Amino acid sequence: MARAWCLTSRPEGLPTAAHFALRDMPERSLEEGEIRVRNRWLSVDPYMRGRMNAGKSYVEPFGIDAPMTGGAAGEVTESRHPGFAVGDKVLHMGGWRDEAIVDKALTPVKLPDSDVPLESFLHAMGLTGATAWIGLLKVAQAQAGDRVFVSAAAGAVGSIAVQIAKAKGMTVIGSAGGAEKCAWVKALGADAVIDYRAGPVLDQLRQATRDIDGRIDVYFDNVGGDHLDAALACSTKDARFAICGMIGGYNDANPLALHFSRMIIVNRIRIAGFLYSDHLADLPAFQADMGAMLKSGDVTPRHTIFDGLEQAPDAFLGLFSGANMGKMLIKL
Amino acid sequence: MARAWCLTSRPEGLPTAAHFALRDMPERSLEEGEIRVRNRWLSVDPYMRGRMNAGKSYVEPFGIDAPMTGGAAGEVTESRHPGFAVGDKVLHMGGWRDEAIVDKALTPVKLPDSDVPLESFLHAMGLTGATAWIGLLKVAQAQAGDRVFVSAAAGAVGSIAVQIAKAKGMTVIGSAGGAEKCAWVKALGADAVIDYRAGPVLDQLRQATRDIDGRIDVYFDNVGGDHLDAALACSTKDARFAICGMIGGYNDANPLALHFSRMIIVNRIRIAGFLYSDHLADLPAFQADMGAMLKSGDVTPRHTIFDGLEQAPDAFLGLFSGANMGKMLIKL
Repeated sequence: MARAWCLTSRPEGLPTAAHFALRDMPERSLEEGEIRVRNRWLSVDPYMRGRMNAGKSYVEPFGIDAPMTGGAAGEVTESRHPGFAVGDKVLHMGGWRDEAIVDKALTPVKLPDSDVPLESFLHAMGLTGATAWIGLLKVAQAQAGDRVFVSAAAGAVGSIAVQIAKAKGMTVIGSAGGAEKCAWVKALGADAVIDYRAGPVLDQLRQATRDIDGRIDVYFDNVGGDHLDAALACSTKDARFAICGMIGGYNDANPLALHFSRMIIVNRIRIAGFLYSDHLADLPAFQADMGAMLKSGDVTPRHTIFDGLEQAPDAFLGLFSGANMGKMLIKL
Repeated sequence: MARAWCLTSRPEGLPTAAHFALRDMPERSLEEGEIRVRNRWLSVDPYMRGRMNAGKSYVEPFGIDAPMTGGAAGEVTESRHPGFAVGDKVLHMGGWRDEAIVDKALTPVKLPDSDVPLESFLHAMGLTGATAWIGLLKVAQAQAGDRVFVSAAAGAVGSIAVQIAKAKGMTVIGSAGGAEKCAWVKALGADAVIDYRAGPVLDQLRQATRDIDGRIDVYFDNVGGDHLDAALACSTKDARFAICGMIGGYNDANPLALHFSRMIIVNRIRIAGFLYSDHLADLPAFQADMGAMLKSGDVTPRHTIFDGLEQAPDAFLGLFSGANMGKMLIKL
């Protein structure tokens, strides 16, 4: 019997285990155009928190008592779709479950036969990798020689952004929480690292910009909050900020407080929110470039793996306590 | 004897009369390259508040006990510069004084013989008009059909921005403080007006977007604070925000508090701080377009005039209490 995690009620603030229930799904035969997929890897991502609210976000809210959706990779076990055969490896949005009936709405994509591991399509070669690449190179238009600040640099998107920036000849400051993560960000090539748990971000970022001998040209924001404020304070003229996420505020009703908003004018800063899905035309260029960087070793993805469907909510909640280094994945 | 207003100490928060002193200037003969100008009109502008601080802004701080500078228009009374003759009308930065010795650093520009009144070069045909035009059309790239929100719409820059937007076929919401100013903004052609003194900006802006039957494509920000937050809340996808000023925060040590920062990502908003001086290449196009709009009556500039050099600090302080409709000027 296939099982799926359902949202049972809408959380306020940080969700708990009580907001989720693992339910048996009714068995049924496929309709025309559908495929049945045995999932092998599931993705949990911070943006899913927004889908747990009723209000508008950039994707539709999850339904109550319906299976949640999310990135997943697996193998076709049955097909009534001419484009997919049994045994094909597919990437699709029917996550949060061990077996999924996938129709067009869940956007199945057949994966190439290659030596790229299946789980890479949920990270470096997938949504998180593309988000890092598009945000850094297309939205912020970062170039060789730029000084780049990446927050949540030990996270899924941040750790790839750091490595792309180094591969392209930029100077990088990364922020992460705790000594172990900071050591890893440094090992990824960051020129300076700040530990946001060790003291005020502003003071540490000021010191880091002195260490790299220059203020910030580009900020890749995964956090919002005090990181965004500090980045404004330490910006240089014509700085570009790509706003990818504001995980610091997803569970928090407090407003974003900016003491350095005047720097937006002083330094003519351009701030742009972006979503991966608005840049689909850039995906072929991304795939070629990322494929080469993975092959050369310029980008080395890392995964934090939770075992078994039962652990999916814990893995998701771990995103907000910083439990992951690199990409958080669930292995089935 | 020529007199000039000097800054005597650096204010914290709102300046008072005690921070300024009107002093006699030592008489001296001109050096090569200088002109002597009898000022007729002086400009006071919100950006000057930033120059009263010691810290970095986009222009150098005013010196202590030295004459302040600022936009001024007058007539040449003596010249040791081959490009200027006695009787020429000039625009320059030797403001805050009745007579100025103007060298290259004060950027004198000879004004054309025309029927444009001298004071217009301190407003619609000058810095404030160009700021409105560049911010709206170049930075925010507003186009016919866009729904545009302009804060401080009864102010110098805002009142011109409203009129440009209407002349170019946009729908406009303007905000102003008090019934008299709101009535004027409506008379300028705004489709909806909100009075920020009459209630929360957020509630009123939500109502205004219902009144014009659509959310905001463009926000021209002169205010920051609750206006910026409300504009985020009422934005539509791919909205563009031109950040011209944040007068609400110039005298305020409190941080900018944004409850709707997530909309930057949800709506992929592009926010850009800008300065007139970064867009000098656009000035000929501005002058031609604004000249035509003044002639046709599409743009009707308005001035709030204080009489006499003695009143310059009161005129400046009046900017922060909303004493001006249109451009605040001092007539000598």
